[in-house]
Amino acid sequence: MRLIGKEEVENIAIGASLLGTGGGGDPYIGKMMALQAIEEHGPIQLLDITELDDDDLVVPLAMMGAPTVMVEKIPSGEEALVSFRELEKVLGKEIKATMPIEAGGVNSLLPLALAARIGLPVVDGDGMGRAFPELQMVTFYLNDVSTTPMVLSDEKGNSMVLNTINGVWAEKIARSATMVLGGSVMNAIYPMTGKQAKDSAIYRTLTLEEKIGRTIKEAKKNKQNPIDAVLSLLGGYRLFTGKVVDIERKTDGGFVRGTATIDGLDNDKGNNCYLEFQNENLLAKTDTEVLCMTPDLITVLDTETALPITTEGLRYGARGTVIGIPSDEKWRTQKGIEVAGPRYFGYDYDFTPVEKLRERVRENDEISVGN
Amino acid sequence: MRLIGKEEVENIAIGASLLGTGGGGDPYIGKMMALQAIEEHGPIQLLDITELDDDDLVVPLAMMGAPTVMVEKIPSGEEALVSFRELEKVLGKEIKATMPIEAGGVNSLLPLALAARIGLPVVDGDGMGRAFPELQMVTFYLNDVSTTPMVLSDEKGNSMVLNTINGVWAEKIARSATMVLGGSVMNAIYPMTGKQAKDSAIYRTLTLEEKIGRTIKEAKKNKQNPIDAVLSLLGGYRLFTGKVVDIERKTDGGFVRGTATIDGLDNDKGNNCYLEFQNENLLAKTDTEVLCMTPDLITVLDTETALPITTEGLRYGARGTVIGIPSDEKWRTQKGIEVAGPRYFGYDYDFTPVEKLRERVRENDEISVGN
Repeated sequence: MRLIGKEEVENIAIGASLLGTGGGGDPYIGKMMALQAIEEHGPIQLLDITELDDDDLVVPLAMMGAPTVMVEKIPSGEEALVSFRELEKVLGKEIKATMPIEAGGVNSLLPLALAARIGLPVVDGDGMGRAFPELQMVTFYLNDVSTTPMVLSDEKGNSMVLNTINGVWAEKIARSATMVLGGSVMNAIYPMTGKQAKDSAIYRTLTLEEKIGRTIKEAKKNKQNPIDAVLSLLGGYRLFTGKVVDIERKTDGGFVRGTATIDGLDNDKGNNCYLEFQNENLLAKTDTEVLCMTPDLITVLDTETALPITTEGLRYGARGTVIGIPSDEKWRTQKGIEVAGPRYFGYDYDFTPVEKLRERVRENDEISVGN
Repeated sequence: MRLIGKEEVENIAIGASLLGTGGGGDPYIGKMMALQAIEEHGPIQLLDITELDDDDLVVPLAMMGAPTVMVEKIPSGEEALVSFRELEKVLGKEIKATMPIEAGGVNSLLPLALAARIGLPVVDGDGMGRAFPELQMVTFYLNDVSTTPMVLSDEKGNSMVLNTINGVWAEKIARSATMVLGGSVMNAIYPMTGKQAKDSAIYRTLTLEEKIGRTIKEAKKNKQNPIDAVLSLLGGYRLFTGKVVDIERKTDGGFVRGTATIDGLDNDKGNNCYLEFQNENLLAKTDTEVLCMTPDLITVLDTETALPITTEGLRYGARGTVIGIPSDEKWRTQKGIEVAGPRYFGYDYDFTPVEKLRERVRENDEISVGN
């Protein structure tokens, strides 16, 4: 257990947004909520997963909704509390700790805000190691942790307890309720034992997020290239550098879907990169090659500042560097790829790890150079 | 308390369908479920509202969904039981009796089927005295009985407990969940005390339905006009007689909306009647006059058999007699008209009781005759 305060939260916000692969909501909102809660209630206890007792009740907190809506509708924190208290009633057991469900600007930081407010420890882990758009896209689901009972609350005072036959139904029902309720809700979801958390969660996501933020800041202070520094930390790849020249984006069925076109600069001059997203970036390709695909991570960093740009923040003229990061091995299993691989999202590709795709790109470059 | 068996159920099915004003679902399905349950478990205890203790827990059972879907998806009864047991858990109290939420082919009879199956008494009353398309359109709501906690279950095994700030939100959330879940669900809804039932319910709806069915049958046996007989029983009016020549109908947002055009026969020859419906018939008018409007009851009876025709059953060429029946006084209050009057459904008319509209029609006819 260690305590985390404002400086850690600032760094976590940066790292969460980077692992959030363009989705996961505006890091500013989550950060403000967490900072304010620390201001009022003091630092937060961060628990390593190994510190959980096997029968502790751990409940992830997740905001659900399209990030476009989250920007307009800042949650009070009261909804999260309602969801937790209701779930405790349903389960007849006290919640021992919360945990982020995913890495992302909002969903990494909201559990911290709730934790500070009610003095609950936060588990240093999550269910994705990145962000994904649907509720069943978590390693908990891959490990057969039940999505429900889950409680979903809105800021108006409406709440519902769901019991579904599987996570896909939970996703469908909760998504439709979210839209009816005005676009975003707070979910107490995937209630699990300490044992289940140990078996299924991705470990130390918050610590990694904090390191990412610190690495970027320190590189800048030391006049090093912050993108190089963060790629070295994460074992990632620089996929493409350019300028955003076109964005198509629409809110559809509770998701933000779209494509961004990036016109190459520097080494990529003369080339285009196309980013396909559905809340999160899911596929990066050029006219001739696929650069990276889900479940591997695709993030756009501001080429100057190395700060992550969400799909919402992508603007015409923005100079961005697209990076690719291998996903956790849990996602690269057959079940992981079924649940969150390219075909699930309608892209007609077999999943190929980003490191393999890089080899091919390098070979092609060598052939081109040799010609 | 009296016991009701198969013959009573047959009559109730006819009366429920008539009071169902075109909606409330296919009377065949509800009847079959109730008859089968009586076959297996014996007759059902029907309780007069006055027999309830003030602190008894009474829970209406209501199927929600578009009647088009109900026709294709016959419920097993298991969903209803799940909803009742879940609600008992939430409230920590045993349910003493159930009650129909509305008069209608399905929703009058499903509570009987559940009651027979689990040996629960049924209260002789309902929340509408007719059928209406939305959950807040009940006299319970007019009397401030809370719509929630309510439990909604589907045939797949999904369920949800709703707690909403009012009935309109319950309607919105449940409607959207219903659509996601495949078009129809079973709701345990408006849990109330015996005292609340006494204050807010419409009394003796099942007994009235039974009388309607018996009146139609006996009139036919005695070679009397069954439509005259039923109008005399209900204090209703013959509004229009003709042949269905056009039907527009679409399933939209969980409702069946449409218009039927009826070409006049006999006294109405040369005239057209237009029936506007949204699950239920809500407005009947000719080219020059409004004949009847919600919350008053508008039902189409087969001109030959006097059996009610649902909006689903309206077919080109069908010969129908449109009748109008004054609604319960609870609906004719300011709040009743706000909740279920013509303007709520988008018709630009002030509510005028059917008996007033009939006077006007008669005056106009006399003027015409005088010319």
